[in-house]
Amino acid sequence: MDVTSSLFQRIIKKQVTVGIVGMGYVGGALAEACSSAGYSTIGFDIDKKVVLRVNRQNKENILATTRGEFLKICDIICICVPTPINKDFTPNLSFFKAAIKTVGKFLTKGKMVIVESSITPGTIKSFAKPVLEETSKLLAGKDFLLAYSPERIDPGNTRFKFRQVPKVVSGIDEPSLKAAWQFYGSLVDQVVAVSSLEVAEMTKFLENVFRMVNISFINELSDYAKSKGIDILEVIKAASTKPFGFMPHYPGPGAGGDCIPVLSYYLLDDAKKKNVPLKVVEAAMKVNEERPQKIVEKVEMVLNGHLKPSPKKPRVLIVGVAYKAGSSNIRGSVSLKVWEEVEKRGVQISYHDPFVPRVNGHHSIPLTRKNILGADVIVIATDHQNIRYEKLVKFQKPIVDARNVLASYRLPHIIRI
Amino acid sequence: MDVTSSLFQRIIKKQVTVGIVGMGYVGGALAEACSSAGYSTIGFDIDKKVVLRVNRQNKENILATTRGEFLKICDIICICVPTPINKDFTPNLSFFKAAIKTVGKFLTKGKMVIVESSITPGTIKSFAKPVLEETSKLLAGKDFLLAYSPERIDPGNTRFKFRQVPKVVSGIDEPSLKAAWQFYGSLVDQVVAVSSLEVAEMTKFLENVFRMVNISFINELSDYAKSKGIDILEVIKAASTKPFGFMPHYPGPGAGGDCIPVLSYYLLDDAKKKNVPLKVVEAAMKVNEERPQKIVEKVEMVLNGHLKPSPKKPRVLIVGVAYKAGSSNIRGSVSLKVWEEVEKRGVQISYHDPFVPRVNGHHSIPLTRKNILGADVIVIATDHQNIRYEKLVKFQKPIVDARNVLASYRLPHIIRI
Repeated sequence: MDVTSSLFQRIIKKQVTVGIVGMGYVGGALAEACSSAGYSTIGFDIDKKVVLRVNRQNKENILATTRGEFLKICDIICICVPTPINKDFTPNLSFFKAAIKTVGKFLTKGKMVIVESSITPGTIKSFAKPVLEETSKLLAGKDFLLAYSPERIDPGNTRFKFRQVPKVVSGIDEPSLKAAWQFYGSLVDQVVAVSSLEVAEMTKFLENVFRMVNISFINELSDYAKSKGIDILEVIKAASTKPFGFMPHYPGPGAGGDCIPVLSYYLLDDAKKKNVPLKVVEAAMKVNEERPQKIVEKVEMVLNGHLKPSPKKPRVLIVGVAYKAGSSNIRGSVSLKVWEEVEKRGVQISYHDPFVPRVNGHHSIPLTRKNILGADVIVIATDHQNIRYEKLVKFQKPIVDARNVLASYRLPHIIRI
Repeated sequence: MDVTSSLFQRIIKKQVTVGIVGMGYVGGALAEACSSAGYSTIGFDIDKKVVLRVNRQNKENILATTRGEFLKICDIICICVPTPINKDFTPNLSFFKAAIKTVGKFLTKGKMVIVESSITPGTIKSFAKPVLEETSKLLAGKDFLLAYSPERIDPGNTRFKFRQVPKVVSGIDEPSLKAAWQFYGSLVDQVVAVSSLEVAEMTKFLENVFRMVNISFINELSDYAKSKGIDILEVIKAASTKPFGFMPHYPGPGAGGDCIPVLSYYLLDDAKKKNVPLKVVEAAMKVNEERPQKIVEKVEMVLNGHLKPSPKKPRVLIVGVAYKAGSSNIRGSVSLKVWEEVEKRGVQISYHDPFVPRVNGHHSIPLTRKNILGADVIVIATDHQNIRYEKLVKFQKPIVDARNVLASYRLPHIIRI
């Protein structure tokens, strides 16, 4: 295939321009990896603020734009847009669809399109390929290469650098696989080629739903332990000494974010269509959906039972609104669900999050003596590492510790969910 | 506490006789570890065959008997009897009860009783302790020491020696914990002391139910992959390259044996009493219960569809009847459930298992050409490593491969569940 084999040669020489569609945490991390590897990289995003932020950073090899026209000068186009869910928990492919259409519109011969967004197995072949072909009037395999490589970005994980996390790649044909393998080989230490797009698509499902199932399992087991007066954290620590057949997960407010619960819903949606019952995954989702309510119940318990009647509006201070430690992402954050529910009950909310300066029209407030004393209940909803939690303890305010960061304190005003 | 502190000194000097009640795979392994550590060890079992087998082996430091009287000369008594389930899936503590009573009957001052059997958290305090005290007329803590250390024997696991698997220990009081810690420290490299009997009891629950949940999850996900024409084994292999947040489990006929499903039922039984819903665990048990039926369905499919009508009784050859690879244990084996179901349909069964010479009145038959050709369907139900599976393939007989041992052959007569 002449038209695309020259691309392969240019990847080897690193003479390709990489376009990254969607500059969120996935696209952003990929752009940095491309930039470090020496590729000229152009980030595309519909959000002007994101584009401005990237350009203001003035990084080597990275430019950002809202203009799709620049896709014309990209040789490799990576699609990293979010694939969230609708309110009815069905897949929302609107960003993905729009991205594919824009890419198709500016696609020319000899390019490679790589999808990194998490999607239901089969989506590349049944959806991305035909849309790309129709909008570009080109043929996948003949005129352009098409590959899929699921993202493995773990926001807040500082243990593994991008380069250290192996990348699973697949192609719509042999040349696509080969080119994608070569490209990612310049970004990470290990590239894992699989036999089909569907295997790569499903790999992401397995990785994410594994976490969903285990998080819900440990959450319900934590409820059981609580009912027995047993410290689940000590049990997890003891079980973790087993050198085979066990992997620790920790109880908390439930899994949030774009990935773990979202992909579980994608899986359930598709399994339903295929008429395959997924009892364990369904149960895991139910447990996860009920989890934020446990925090709300504890807050209510404190407000109703522990406080003296007061004419004032009760005040709750939420510590951590990002969906997970070390992240600034608030999409799908359990903290926001708790916020919404607690606010409904006529409570005044304030919050502190070093990663999230503003949310719901509020600004993050510092954890000063005054702000802590001003709260009737403190909810620790995210376990950011750079917060001095011990400071919260000494003011004797009731603390609902949904992340067990204060588990070592055995004080009556610290309430675990 | 004088009466028991002399025991502690004698453990340090290894001048204690260890009694092991229940010489199954747990007690047997513990007896060997004690023997290797230089302790005079007496194994107790109600099964004369077990006792004869142990004595015939004539091992250094190990004697076996059915006579409880010999408990009188044991300083440390370890209870390793099985704790199975009743037909209605409730805990069957009859062996445990009988063992505790026998031990209590012969218990004298200054001894230590250690339980290794898997039990519901709280069972030592609420059940073992009072029964021991009543039958012995002695007081736990004052007259004898009482400890709990969950067994971690993984039958067929050759990767880890007894000594290499850390032992979690707990005691009814500080001296009990200390003595148990000292004793196990002479048997294994790492002893993990936990703060209460209940934490130790629950550690075993967590370890086992974790496996149950993950096995059922991968089994149902395997069904989904099948419906999509995706090879789940390739997906698992790809996901396993993720260096964090993932642990591979493999699809198969469901979890059998004494441990994994049994303890999950113990947990469900107790959680029900405590009014704690365990949705994920319940779903996992349902998936596991339905699993053997999948094999039966495949066998039926072959017998109904693929064979020419014949006046003869159809014949099924089951390869592997032990509940897991490398084990001779058939308790709770999925193979036997399949056997029962298939036999009901008027099928003639034969089996091969190098670890199980006799079962259901049948003898294991060798995998000769004649025996293989004599079968209409072959079911691979256990994945023992020392079977030459490739030999089965060449005779072109339909094979229901419930363990994916022939996954690399892509032949139409090999049927995966």
